[in-house]
Amino acid sequence: LSGFRRHVLVLAGGRGERFWPWSQPDRPKQLLPLASGGRTLLRATLDRALTLADASDILIMTAKDLVPAIQAEAPRGVQVLGEPVGRNTAPAIAAAALRFGAASSFAVMPSDHVIEDLAAFTADLTSAFDLAEKGGVLVTFGIPPTGPETNLGYLKQGAVLGGGFARVAQFCEKPDRARAEAFLGAGGYTWNSGIFVWRSDAFLKALEAEKPEMVAALRGIGPAGDGGDAAFERVFPTLESISVDYAVMEKAPNVVMREASFDWDDLGSWSAWARRQPRDARGNVIVGAGVRALDCDRCVIVSSEPGILAVMGLEDTIVVRSAGGTLVCPLAASDQVRRVTQALREGA
Amino acid sequence: LSGFRRHVLVLAGGRGERFWPWSQPDRPKQLLPLASGGRTLLRATLDRALTLADASDILIMTAKDLVPAIQAEAPRGVQVLGEPVGRNTAPAIAAAALRFGAASSFAVMPSDHVIEDLAAFTADLTSAFDLAEKGGVLVTFGIPPTGPETNLGYLKQGAVLGGGFARVAQFCEKPDRARAEAFLGAGGYTWNSGIFVWRSDAFLKALEAEKPEMVAALRGIGPAGDGGDAAFERVFPTLESISVDYAVMEKAPNVVMREASFDWDDLGSWSAWARRQPRDARGNVIVGAGVRALDCDRCVIVSSEPGILAVMGLEDTIVVRSAGGTLVCPLAASDQVRRVTQALREGA
Repeated sequence: LSGFRRHVLVLAGGRGERFWPWSQPDRPKQLLPLASGGRTLLRATLDRALTLADASDILIMTAKDLVPAIQAEAPRGVQVLGEPVGRNTAPAIAAAALRFGAASSFAVMPSDHVIEDLAAFTADLTSAFDLAEKGGVLVTFGIPPTGPETNLGYLKQGAVLGGGFARVAQFCEKPDRARAEAFLGAGGYTWNSGIFVWRSDAFLKALEAEKPEMVAALRGIGPAGDGGDAAFERVFPTLESISVDYAVMEKAPNVVMREASFDWDDLGSWSAWARRQPRDARGNVIVGAGVRALDCDRCVIVSSEPGILAVMGLEDTIVVRSAGGTLVCPLAASDQVRRVTQALREGA
Repeated sequence: LSGFRRHVLVLAGGRGERFWPWSQPDRPKQLLPLASGGRTLLRATLDRALTLADASDILIMTAKDLVPAIQAEAPRGVQVLGEPVGRNTAPAIAAAALRFGAASSFAVMPSDHVIEDLAAFTADLTSAFDLAEKGGVLVTFGIPPTGPETNLGYLKQGAVLGGGFARVAQFCEKPDRARAEAFLGAGGYTWNSGIFVWRSDAFLKALEAEKPEMVAALRGIGPAGDGGDAAFERVFPTLESISVDYAVMEKAPNVVMREASFDWDDLGSWSAWARRQPRDARGNVIVGAGVRALDCDRCVIVSSEPGILAVMGLEDTIVVRSAGGTLVCPLAASDQVRRVTQALREGA
């Protein structure tokens, strides 16, 4: 026994707007049944978390208005904490570290990624817990890149430490296409998975070095249950909105990485989703009883509503019809779907 | 006074499937509000007919199941006769000629075309009535072609008769593209409008020469009102299904034509409809409060339903969302929309 109680923090506050119109403000990507076995991405994340920690040692942080929907997906015992306003990942992780308390370690997991190889995931995370508890390092997982993605951060691998771990030489935020291609050409770069493992004390120390006022404000809240959640609601909105990558990972001297041996897909767009779906003889992904595709090639046509959706003579196009609306755009523009939700928010 | 009572026969039995999903089996093209002033095409046709004949001298022939919807559009006094089965235009026109009786003349008008210049239309038709009543000829109207349409028949003009009339040298059914282009290059060809004017006796004589059994069967029915409609329902299904073009116009020696001085559009497709609509700065036709077009050029986007229809990054594409379904296809394929309705009928 290491002496550290292992926890999991699941981050489930995202709005997942890239799956509009299937995703909606009250049903974001992590609540869509995009994982194997018809599970939501959140439920699949929790299933992975349960291989590492007891249900009562798992905490989900999400937006306050999503708490009921998130709770409905969580097994008994899992705790759900609603953020009164979004403050990005650093404040949420710091609040969790303080709740987990002294002599704890925890993994941070986004709730909207697809990971199917449960055994490899559990083995990788367990080895990270072992190292983090022993050495006080901040462990992050890198994903071997399959293309010059511009919607992901990159990790540049540094000195090898043994046991599958290495120093992180550099954190590189979402690059432009040319830079992403240069990374791939150079080798030694992996995608930043957003999955971390560390001791609570080690994380708080690293954050304190950069954002002492954030940690101090959260320490002042006191333990949950003793009026702690009311204090949390009061204090949280006053915190700086900043990602853990900027606040900690780019600066801390004790960051180490492990190249993931598990599969990973962040399902960043409809086209990313479509790559995982069965296709017909002409390369179309067809979902929904009312869909009719005539002379279509490599289209993605999804209808969750009654009635007919007929698509004729198109190539490489997405058509999605759901209760939340209808979307039509080129497959290549599927990573720009946020422009639609932005326009809708702005009342355009 | 010519001694002939003038009537109008409005043909309203078509299913107008090219406007799917807006058009539906129970709401075909002629019942869509595609004419000026928000009128249905049928209502606009009746408004034109009323400049030539009294309401009680106007007869609409349609499919039996459409009678109630058609009657709802017809002014008081207009008669509506439902065909128990479709038999194309020749039997319908012959039945009308017999109903109108001796010493009558009539115009035949399709109910799903757009004609906006009422004065020119009335003047053209009146001159045709005058000539037909005097000379016993069969008058048809040719439309100056604006392009090599392959969905229309063509009239080749023959010897000029004076008064704006000429012989028809040849009736040419829907040609292929190369032939249509040759017609336009040669000159002297007009589109067959499907609008005819003749005396009832002249028409029946011409039909009798080719299809004596058809006329004989209809003569046996007797006048409507004396059990005539029951007899009509029994006899009509036994008649040959054939168009007036094949049965009469291609063969009769006394066919004359007049080049229309009125505007005319058969609205043969969504793209034909779109040509008549206002466009935004990027050439898009946008109809419906829920439509959002982002980075679209020359698209036709129509939504008659609540909710959002977002189209992004497309060119020259039609997206139509109605209670009857949703259609997405290239603008250039809009004349193939019947393939969709055909697939739906076949349960494909």
